[in-house]
Amino acid sequence: MNETSSRQPADLSRRRFLNTTAFAGLAGAGLSVGLAACKQDTGAATAQPGAAAPASHSDSYSVPPGQLDTYYMFSSAGHAGDVRVFGLPSGREFKRIPVFNTDCMVGWGITNESKAIIGTNPDGSVKFNTGDTHHLHPSYTDGTYDGKYLFVNDKINCRLARVRLDTMECDKITEIPNIQGFHGTFPDKCDPVDAAINHTTRVFCGAEFSVPLPNFGKGIDDTAGYRSLFTCVDSESMEVRWQVLIDGNCELVATAYDGKLAATTQYNSEMGTTYPDMMSAEWDSCLFFNVARIEQAVKDGKFKTYGDSKVPVVDGSKAANADPKTALTCYVPIPKNPHGVNISPDGKYYACAGKLSPSGSLIAHELVLKWFDGELGEPRKAVVAEPELGLGPLHTAFDGRGYAYTTMFLDSQIVKWSIEGAIKSYQGDKDATVVVERLDVHYQPGHGFTSMGETRECDGKFLVSDNKFSKDRFLPVGPLHPETSQLIDISGDKMVIVHDNPVSSEPHDSIIIRREIITPKQMYKLDDFPNAVRDAKESGVFRDGNKVTVKLVSQAPAFSLPEFRVKKGDEVTIILTNLDKIEDLTHGFAIQRHNINFIVNPQETKSVTFKANKAGVFWCYCTHFCHAMHMEMRSRMVVEA
Amino acid sequence: MNETSSRQPADLSRRRFLNTTAFAGLAGAGLSVGLAACKQDTGAATAQPGAAAPASHSDSYSVPPGQLDTYYMFSSAGHAGDVRVFGLPSGREFKRIPVFNTDCMVGWGITNESKAIIGTNPDGSVKFNTGDTHHLHPSYTDGTYDGKYLFVNDKINCRLARVRLDTMECDKITEIPNIQGFHGTFPDKCDPVDAAINHTTRVFCGAEFSVPLPNFGKGIDDTAGYRSLFTCVDSESMEVRWQVLIDGNCELVATAYDGKLAATTQYNSEMGTTYPDMMSAEWDSCLFFNVARIEQAVKDGKFKTYGDSKVPVVDGSKAANADPKTALTCYVPIPKNPHGVNISPDGKYYACAGKLSPSGSLIAHELVLKWFDGELGEPRKAVVAEPELGLGPLHTAFDGRGYAYTTMFLDSQIVKWSIEGAIKSYQGDKDATVVVERLDVHYQPGHGFTSMGETRECDGKFLVSDNKFSKDRFLPVGPLHPETSQLIDISGDKMVIVHDNPVSSEPHDSIIIRREIITPKQMYKLDDFPNAVRDAKESGVFRDGNKVTVKLVSQAPAFSLPEFRVKKGDEVTIILTNLDKIEDLTHGFAIQRHNINFIVNPQETKSVTFKANKAGVFWCYCTHFCHAMHMEMRSRMVVEA
Repeated sequence: MNETSSRQPADLSRRRFLNTTAFAGLAGAGLSVGLAACKQDTGAATAQPGAAAPASHSDSYSVPPGQLDTYYMFSSAGHAGDVRVFGLPSGREFKRIPVFNTDCMVGWGITNESKAIIGTNPDGSVKFNTGDTHHLHPSYTDGTYDGKYLFVNDKINCRLARVRLDTMECDKITEIPNIQGFHGTFPDKCDPVDAAINHTTRVFCGAEFSVPLPNFGKGIDDTAGYRSLFTCVDSESMEVRWQVLIDGNCELVATAYDGKLAATTQYNSEMGTTYPDMMSAEWDSCLFFNVARIEQAVKDGKFKTYGDSKVPVVDGSKAANADPKTALTCYVPIPKNPHGVNISPDGKYYACAGKLSPSGSLIAHELVLKWFDGELGEPRKAVVAEPELGLGPLHTAFDGRGYAYTTMFLDSQIVKWSIEGAIKSYQGDKDATVVVERLDVHYQPGHGFTSMGETRECDGKFLVSDNKFSKDRFLPVGPLHPETSQLIDISGDKMVIVHDNPVSSEPHDSIIIRREIITPKQMYKLDDFPNAVRDAKESGVFRDGNKVTVKLVSQAPAFSLPEFRVKKGDEVTIILTNLDKIEDLTHGFAIQRHNINFIVNPQETKSVTFKANKAGVFWCYCTHFCHAMHMEMRSRMVVEA
Repeated sequence: MNETSSRQPADLSRRRFLNTTAFAGLAGAGLSVGLAACKQDTGAATAQPGAAAPASHSDSYSVPPGQLDTYYMFSSAGHAGDVRVFGLPSGREFKRIPVFNTDCMVGWGITNESKAIIGTNPDGSVKFNTGDTHHLHPSYTDGTYDGKYLFVNDKINCRLARVRLDTMECDKITEIPNIQGFHGTFPDKCDPVDAAINHTTRVFCGAEFSVPLPNFGKGIDDTAGYRSLFTCVDSESMEVRWQVLIDGNCELVATAYDGKLAATTQYNSEMGTTYPDMMSAEWDSCLFFNVARIEQAVKDGKFKTYGDSKVPVVDGSKAANADPKTALTCYVPIPKNPHGVNISPDGKYYACAGKLSPSGSLIAHELVLKWFDGELGEPRKAVVAEPELGLGPLHTAFDGRGYAYTTMFLDSQIVKWSIEGAIKSYQGDKDATVVVERLDVHYQPGHGFTSMGETRECDGKFLVSDNKFSKDRFLPVGPLHPETSQLIDISGDKMVIVHDNPVSSEPHDSIIIRREIITPKQMYKLDDFPNAVRDAKESGVFRDGNKVTVKLVSQAPAFSLPEFRVKKGDEVTIILTNLDKIEDLTHGFAIQRHNINFIVNPQETKSVTFKANKAGVFWCYCTHFCHAMHMEMRSRMVVEA
C-alpha cells in the first residue's frame, strides 16, 4: 500500500465556500469572480510549478530523435472542431484530422469529396464549418480497441462523425434530429442479446439541452415541455436507429462491457431553463438505458416521431417507466450536478463525479441489472460507494489495479482513490483507506484518462490530465492562453508529472491506445477512387455545354497538363490523381486568386468544382513540397473571355 | 577550429545524376521517380535515425514541467494558412494564429471583426479561406527584432498579412494587384535615405509567376510578354506603395541592414512558362533593387499603372537599366535555378543557393552598391565566393561566428561552411577550408534558420531544420505524413540534433526570437472596442426594422441575458463583451444548429451577424471552458415564427 493521506473528512469551510461562490456569477452586473479564479486567489500554496517533476525523472520519458513513441493519443479538439493525433510519452503532435472545421491544407471543405461528407447548401457552400468536439471514442472488439473507427461528436450543430483509423480521415458525418447540445458519446462494446456480436455496432449520443418537440416555433414558452433525447446511431451505416425521450438532460455517456446498459449523467434533473433552476435540486441522476428492451419496443412499434424526422422515439420518462420489469430506463439518484461517468475496466462499476458535491458515486452494474429485474427496489440502492474526494470532481480514470483517479476542477488536483476502500467506507468501515494520493496539476483539470483505461486491457502506465487553464506555465502568447495536457506516470507508488504540453484550446477528451493496435494504411489504391485518372494519357479538357471537366495527374515534379483552357462562365471540375507511388510523396494543387487548395496523397484522387468567372491566366501550382523542382511544378489555367 | 571534413571536391557522378533525374518527371506518362525518393533509394547508409543524438545529450535540452522556454519560434504553416508559435528548446506549440485560413475555435472568418480584415463577398461570406504562407519575418529596429509586427505572405491569393506580436493576432491583410505567386517577403530594416528611420517601414514582396499585364483575358498566348513584379507595401498602413516590373521572376527576398538594397533570387530568368523552359539556362540571377532610386522614380512620375490598379509600377527590366548610374535594378548572375537568399548578420554578404547547381553563391553588399555607382563593371564581379556544398542547396543560416549553414534538400544534410574559407578558396587558395561539417537530417530539409540569425544579434545557439519528409521518423498516421522540425545545437564544435518535432504540413519558414524581445499583452481594455457592452445593464435586444442587435456580456458562469427573442427573417447582430477581468478567463459563444462559434478573451468585444431563418428555440452556450459551472453557462435564442 502506498503512503496514504487516509480518508478526508468533509471540509465544511470548503463546502460553504462552494455553496456561496458557485452562485456569484448570477449577480448580473455584479462584481462576480468566477470559480475558475479561486485557485489563483486562494490556493497558491499548493500550486508549485514543476515541484513533482525533478529533471532527472522527466528525462527518462524523452523519446530521442529517430525513436518511436509507444502509445497513440487521440484527442477531441473542442471548439476547434478537429481530432488530433499525438504520440506518448513524447507528447509530439503528429496530425490534425479535420472533421467539423475546414482545413485549407488538405482541402477539407474545398474538395467535392469532403463536401459530400460535410453536406452543402443549395449554392454548393459547405453547410457547416464549425464544430465543438467534446468526446471521442474508438470502436471495440472483445472489450478493447480494434483500431477500426473513432467516433466524435459536434455539440454546436448536433452531429456525429466517424474517423477511419487506417487512413486517419473522417469518412462520415451524421446530423441527429430532434436534439440540441449533443455532448456525451460512446460506442457500445457488445450486443445486449447476441453475445457473438462482441464488437461495436451502435454509438450512443446524449443531448444536453432540452427543446420543444418538434422545434418549429411552437411551445417556446412552455419550458416545462422542453425535452432531451438519448440517441442510438448505427456504427456502420451511421444512420440514426432510435431515440429515447427522457426526463432531465444527458451529460457524459458510458457503455457496459456486456452491452446491456448505456448510461448518462444528468446535471439538470430539474429540467430548468435558467442557471439557478439547473442548480436547485440537491440530487440529480445517472440514467441507465436497457438497450435490448428499447430495441424491442421499437420493433413492437411503441414509438413516436417528431416533425420531419422519421427516427422512432420511445418514451424513457420516469412516469412511463415506473415498473422496473418493463422499464426502458432507470434513474439512479446521485448528488448535485454530476459531470462524468466512467465504467471500470472490469465492467463492474460506473464512477460518477458530483461537480457541485465534493464526492464521487460508484454504481454497481449488476445492481442496475437487478433493478431492471425488479429485484433491487429503490434505484439508489445501486450506489455502492460515495467517497468524498474534493472540490469540483469531474471525470474518473482507472489503472486496472483497483485505483480510480478523479480530476478535481476546483482543487486543481488528481485524486487517487481505492475502489475497495471506498466501498468499505460506504459500508461503514471507518478504518478503510479511500484517498491514497493527491497530485497538484496546473490548472483546473477537465478530463483525465489513462493508457488503455477504457478497455479491458487497461495497463495503468500513464494518466493524462487535460487542464483548462495554463496561466503562467508557458511563455505568454497574448490574451488567449493555451491549455495544458500533463502526462503523469502512474505506474509506481507515486504519481509523477512527466511533461507539460501546451494545447491550443481545447484538448477536450482523449484516449490512449497502445501503438500495436493501430495499423495505418500508408498508400491509397487507384481503385479506391471511381473517378481516378489512371494514366497521364487520360488527361485533358472535356466539355459538356458550359460544364468542363479537367482531368490531370501529378508525378513529381510535373502535372500532366502544362496548360488547360476554359471559358469565362464555365463550371469547371478538376479531377486530379496523384500517380506517384512513393510513400509520403503528397502533392498539392492551388489555383491563383481562386481560393482553391487541396492535397492528393500517393495514388489518391480528389476533385474540386468552381465557377471560372474571371478571364485571364491563372497559374496552378503544387503546394505540398514534393521534390527539388517543386517550385517549378505548375500548370496554367487560361480562362478565355 | 573544428574537426573538419575539408573542402569537398565536386562529385561528378552526383552531378550527372542530378542532371538526368531532375528531368525525369517530364516524361509525361513515364515511370518517373521523383528526386524526393532518391535519398530513400540511394542514401540509406547516411540516414541513421537518432545517431547524432545520444539520449544523455538530448535530455539536457528538456524543459521540465513548470519551466519556461528561452526562445519563441514563429513559423509559417504553408498551405495550412496560419502562423504557429512554439517554444524552444522544448519544441512545444503554444498557439496557432489564424491568418488566411478560418478557425472555428476563435471565430476567425465568423466574427464581423475578422471578416472585415479578411474581406467579404457581396453575400457576406469571406472572400478567401485558403492561403499558402511561405515566409514570415518580424519588424526590425536597429537591425534586430522589435517585437512589434510579423509579416507573412499568402501565395495562393496574393496577399500580405500582418500579425501584432503583442496580441499575437492578425490585424491587417492586403491583396496585392498585378501579380501571381507571391512567394518571398521581407521587411526592410532601415530607410535607404534617412538614417534616423532605423526601423521597418516597408515590406518587400516577390512574385514568382509571370502573367499578362493587365490580366483580363488579353495577351494570354503571348507568353513572352508575361511579366513578374516586385512589390513594396507600407508596414504601417499596409497599403501598396509601388511595384517594379522585372525580367525573370522573384523567389526569396532579403533586405540590407543599411536599407539601401532589397534582393530576390530568380529561378526563371528564362521567363519560360513550361518546366523545361524554366530549367534551360545554366545561369539565373540574384536581382537587387535600389530602393532610393525606385522611390525617386515614383516621385518623378516615371511609372505606369495596369488595369484597375492605381499602384505606380516602375520599369526594372534589364533593357531599361543598362546604365548602372541610373539603374533601379542590378541582375547578378548566379548558377542554375537558385532558391534562397539570406544576408549575413554583419550585413556584408548575400548567400544564395543554387538548387540545380551543387553550389552556393556569396554576393558582397558593398560590391553591388559599387555597381550602382558605376564602379564595378560586370555585375557578376559582385560574387565573392561560390563554394561547392552538395546536392540541392536551398537556404543558408548564420551563427555570427563566421560560419554559414546551408540546407541540402537532396543530400538531406546541413552543411556548415566557413565564409572566410569560401572567399579564400574562390580567390584561388587551394588550402582554404570551406566545408567544416555535414550533418544528416531527416529528411529533405527546406528552410534552415538559426536563433536570432537574421538579426545583428545572431547568437549561434540553435539551428532548426524544417524537413519536408518524415518517412519513418514517427508513428504512422495514414497516407499523409507529418513533416519534421529538427532542433540542432550549433553552439559547440559539432552540430547535435536535440529534438525531432513532427509538424503538420507544413512548417515552411520560421524565425527564432529571444523571449525577452516579445512582451505580449495579457488582457484587452474595454476601450479597445468601440462597440463594447460596458455593463450588464446595457444588455438587451434592440430592433431597427428587421435588423436586430442583441447586446450581451459574459461573466463566469453566466451570460447577461438568459433569453433573447427575435423574429424569423431578422438579420441578427450579436455583440458580446467579456467583462471578466481575470487573465486566461476566455469565454466562447455558440448558437445551436446555426454554425456560429467564437471566443471573447477577458475584456474583449466581438460580434457576429446572421439571418435568423428557422423558427424555434436555439440554445447558446459557452464553448470555452471557464468555470465549474461552465456546462450551465447558457442563453436561449427564441426565434418567433
